[in-house]
Amino acid sequence: MYAISLGDDGAELRPLEPWQAEEFLAHVRRGRDFVGRFLPLSEVVWDLESSRAYLRSYAQKAATDTGRIHGIWADGQLVGVVLIRSMDVGQGVAEVGCWLEPSAVGKGLITRAARSVIDWAVEQRGIHRVEWQAATANTASIAVARRLGMTKEGVQRESFPLRGERYDMELWSVLAPEWRAARAAAATAAVAASMP
Amino acid sequence: MYAISLGDDGAELRPLEPWQAEEFLAHVRRGRDFVGRFLPLSEVVWDLESSRAYLRSYAQKAATDTGRIHGIWADGQLVGVVLIRSMDVGQGVAEVGCWLEPSAVGKGLITRAARSVIDWAVEQRGIHRVEWQAATANTASIAVARRLGMTKEGVQRESFPLRGERYDMELWSVLAPEWRAARAAAATAAVAASMP
Amino acid sequence: MYAISLGDDGAELRPLEPWQAEEFLAHVRRGRDFVGRFLPLSEVVWDLESSRAYLRSYAQKAATDTGRIHGIWADGQLVGVVLIRSMDVGQGVAEVGCWLEPSAVGKGLITRAARSVIDWAVEQRGIHRVEWQAATANTASIAVARRLGMTKEGVQRESFPLRGERYDMELWSVLAPEWRAARAAAATAAVAASMP
Amino acid sequence: MYAISLGDDGAELRPLEPWQAEEFLAHVRRGRDFVGRFLPLSEVVWDLESSRAYLRSYAQKAATDTGRIHGIWADGQLVGVVLIRSMDVGQGVAEVGCWLEPSAVGKGLITRAARSVIDWAVEQRGIHRVEWQAATANTASIAVARRLGMTKEGVQRESFPLRGERYDMELWSVLAPEWRAARAAAATAAVAASMP
Amino acid sequence: MYAISLGDDGAELRPLEPWQAEEFLAHVRRGRDFVGRFLPLSEVVWDLESSRAYLRSYAQKAATDTGRIHGIWADGQLVGVVLIRSMDVGQGVAEVGCWLEPSAVGKGLITRAARSVIDWAVEQRGIHRVEWQAATANTASIAVARRLGMTKEGVQRESFPLRGERYDMELWSVLAPEWRAARAAAATAAVAASMP
Amino acid sequence: MYAISLGDDGAELRPLEPWQAEEFLAHVRRGRDFVGRFLPLSEVVWDLESSRAYLRSYAQKAATDTGRIHGIWADGQLVGVVLIRSMDVGQGVAEVGCWLEPSAVGKGLITRAARSVIDWAVEQRGIHRVEWQAATANTASIAVARRLGMTKEGVQRESFPLRGERYDMELWSVLAPEWRAARAAAATAAVAASMP
Repeated sequence: MYAISLGDDGAELRPLEPWQAEEFLAHVRRGRDFVGRFLPLSEVVWDLESSRAYLRSYAQKAATDTGRIHGIWADGQLVGVVLIRSMDVGQGVAEVGCWLEPSAVGKGLITRAARSVIDWAVEQRGIHRVEWQAATANTASIAVARRLGMTKEGVQRESFPLRGERYDMELWSVLAPEWRAARAAAATAAVAASMP
Repeated sequence: MYAISLGDDGAELRPLEPWQAEEFLAHVRRGRDFVGRFLPLSEVVWDLESSRAYLRSYAQKAATDTGRIHGIWADGQLVGVVLIRSMDVGQGVAEVGCWLEPSAVGKGLITRAARSVIDWAVEQRGIHRVEWQAATANTASIAVARRLGMTKEGVQRESFPLRGERYDMELWSVLAPEWRAARAAAATAAVAASMP
Repeated sequence: MYAISLGDDGAELRPLEPWQAEEFLAHVRRGRDFVGRFLPLSEVVWDLESSRAYLRSYAQKAATDTGRIHGIWADGQLVGVVLIRSMDVGQGVAEVGCWLEPSAVGKGLITRAARSVIDWAVEQRGIHRVEWQAATANTASIAVARRLGMTKEGVQRESFPLRGERYDMELWSVLAPEWRAARAAAATAAVAASMP
Repeated sequence: MYAISLGDDGAELRPLEPWQAEEFLAHVRRGRDFVGRFLPLSEVVWDLESSRAYLRSYAQKAATDTGRIHGIWADGQLVGVVLIRSMDVGQGVAEVGCWLEPSAVGKGLITRAARSVIDWAVEQRGIHRVEWQAATANTASIAVARRLGMTKEGVQRESFPLRGERYDMELWSVLAPEWRAARAAAATAAVAASMP
Repeated sequence: MYAISLGDDGAELRPLEPWQAEEFLAHVRRGRDFVGRFLPLSEVVWDLESSRAYLRSYAQKAATDTGRIHGIWADGQLVGVVLIRSMDVGQGVAEVGCWLEPSAVGKGLITRAARSVIDWAVEQRGIHRVEWQAATANTASIAVARRLGMTKEGVQRESFPLRGERYDMELWSVLAPEWRAARAAAATAAVAASMP
Repeated sequence: MYAISLGDDGAELRPLEPWQAEEFLAHVRRGRDFVGRFLPLSEVVWDLESSRAYLRSYAQKAATDTGRIHGIWADGQLVGVVLIRSMDVGQGVAEVGCWLEPSAVGKGLITRAARSVIDWAVEQRGIHRVEWQAATANTASIAVARRLGMTKEGVQRESFPLRGERYDMELWSVLAPEWRAARAAAATAAVAASMP
């Protein structure tokens, strides 16, 4: 029942829950080739049962306050996901991740959705450090990290195996003070731009 | 991060989660005398630990799709709750409940909030029968059931013990076809009322 | 090893435990058409594993003091069940249910067995309110409720789905003072009847 | 509600369940000195919580079919216990144990109660070997084993520590064929004795 | 990574862990006929899943300090097992068991390995009584018990069913003082033997 | 009972298990000031119960093959720890960590112990990437990473909060091929050095 508008095109961010396992499965299947290049999604979710198990694992994370999953809907269809893979409120650290079906790419949906999620983590939950990981070759994901104002901190060499290969994973992050400063700057710029 | 507006006064319905245990405890304490007349709330939630346990039990219900809890915020303060105490999607039956701090009574918040929750249960989740229970003496709660278009089905005699007394509990319900018909009629009436 | 005689015909009420899963399964299969008209029994118990799971769920209820299951044996065969579906000793409320194979109907077995179970709940366990639910069309079950001195409190409309239809369920109950009064009256009547 | 008469004096064997924790605790306290000479009972059950935990552990054994606990009541008071400490139906082996308050000693209650329990294990559950363990110095317990027709198989040296000392434990057992033969002989003797 | 040398022939005792399930399964299969004469090993471990489950159950025993499993490797192959089936540190009692593939029999491996394990139990963990059980017909196992300086305490009649037969099980044990005295005597003898 | 010699000085690496909770607690207390500068050890282990819980969590990791803990003993005292904090055999990634009491620093114990653990992870378990994390200011730990032939991959900014401050954590790693090459080079060098 809850939804956050992601812009004028009607796209929305909403909670994604276990009862939506069928819809989630269809989404994973549509995105298999595209999303699957850098994420082992179809290895984890391949039928209704595994889809429900995946969403339940995130419902458990919500219950223990260690993660969250949100869906992006466009034109009435689930086209992407923004998730807090892990969150340690005591440590003040969270890792955010995302993916998008090819049909929904290029509209800025992920960036806007990730901003809502990071805002919540930083402002509502006191997270100090938000991390983002992406394969070096996943230029789209790295572009999102950059647009979110994140800093590249290093490369975890050969840390992620996928279908017989091992990928280097870049580690990016944004700290709470940086996040707030960037938002303030953006707000100032928006005001300036709207001046006659 | 999610919120549903409950009207022009800025009141909102939002998910209520375990990390909000402190805020929830303060709300229960403020509402103790008023809410507590018919609900054993302060017997169940009396410190931070029991508050977290209560909210966790509902997070578990969300994870297993058997219940939900939502908070009502007015003027930045948690002033009430609408919950799906139990939900059996296979059976198509759910029980809805609610309470409100005295400061927030009389503004129609509960009715509007309950409508959102019942809409979700009926339209999104296929619930056929939505139940509502209230002590016979709890005229405020019974008035809400009536405003929601529910039908009184009977009285469970002496079924609810609270502080040494046993209360008769009325059982009300609305069925999915009734819910939809009432909404359609309300929409028609609204259109008619807006005609010149 | 325990048994309570249900009359001169040798019928007995006994605990029904997980190790009797095979016997219970045979009983469910014999009663499928008859019992199954109003109970989804063969949907819940269809093989040895599900039979054991069902009896184990009641053994767990016994361990947590939230329910009990008893079998009725006649001529050496398990022919029926009386169960405390749910019991909340703190609230003082219990729900009793039952069923019988067609071969054992008409001998008053259920009424006598239910009396033993309700006596235990009321006198040993302090239950104040004993509930009974039956589909409106299940005249046999409703007749038992009436013979047990219960009062009809209402009808839960379309609350019980079974094989594509939704049934209205009547709610009956007897309160502890009513139960004791009826027993005292019956005892007086029995004494009177035995006078010359 | 269930009970088995243990003779003309009104003593009865009944299931002992978690809700009887208070009664059980009182019994353990009365029997502390006497029973406690050879059993660490008051080390295991010392307050209401530990009493409930003890009875719950046996309710769990019933649920998993690995043990049972029964109480002996005399003059309306719980005065003793006969338990199946462990039962492995697949292996056909069970261990039986017991204790009695001093006030109830010398009436043959334990022997009669143990017979009911062993009969059930052997005849209803197919147990082939029933074991009994007793400290060498516990002559009363050993006398019961002998009266039950058991055979001493050996002595487990210094196997049982109690309050700083280690006790030798005798191991006794009766096999199903022996049990049945002894019962048949007893029945024959009873018939012979009743002949004029 | 850990290993204890069992002599000049390169044989070693090492921890046996869940990740070695494949190697353990191969060992069980090789030893099926020989080991299986007196142990239901191939009934418990028959595929990779059951092999992992078996080793996991012992990892759980290690985590709760109630048992241990060790493997014997000779010529790079897992050829036998010495385990602490059960250990109750509070009671000071442990039961040790073992088996060996036929190819490794006759080299004293089991005796030497069991000595290490019993030494640890007695000296490191304060176990007072170490038990050993063997079928009366299992002369090899009984010979090990004797070589370990154990005393036969009795025979558990028909206690162990295996493939349709019931076996008598001998119970042997060694107490901590006996164990230490025997080791001291052996050390003295060794010194004497090495004197010119 | 298992031990790996760490050199001529008698120091040894051994498994560290829940039953050693008392010894572990004493070690943590001795190392509090020194170890605690960069590790929240005394926040996690402060009494016998928390010590046992900590060791049990690692016993659980061993049971599920996701981590290991080893102790370093010198002069009969537990003076340090090398642990596999996390291990994902499917991903081929493990993180190794360590600490040492001040009395044991400067003897190369940690480096030698870590080599045994990494050897096991790489050669026995197929781990491809071994990680090491250390606060930028923890020069001793970083020196060990360098001696182990690891490569610095980046700095996780302000990722680790300890007593009111947030520390930058360096991320180091060594890949399996690098590990093997370094060992081969070291072996060659050792042979060369031993030549006349």
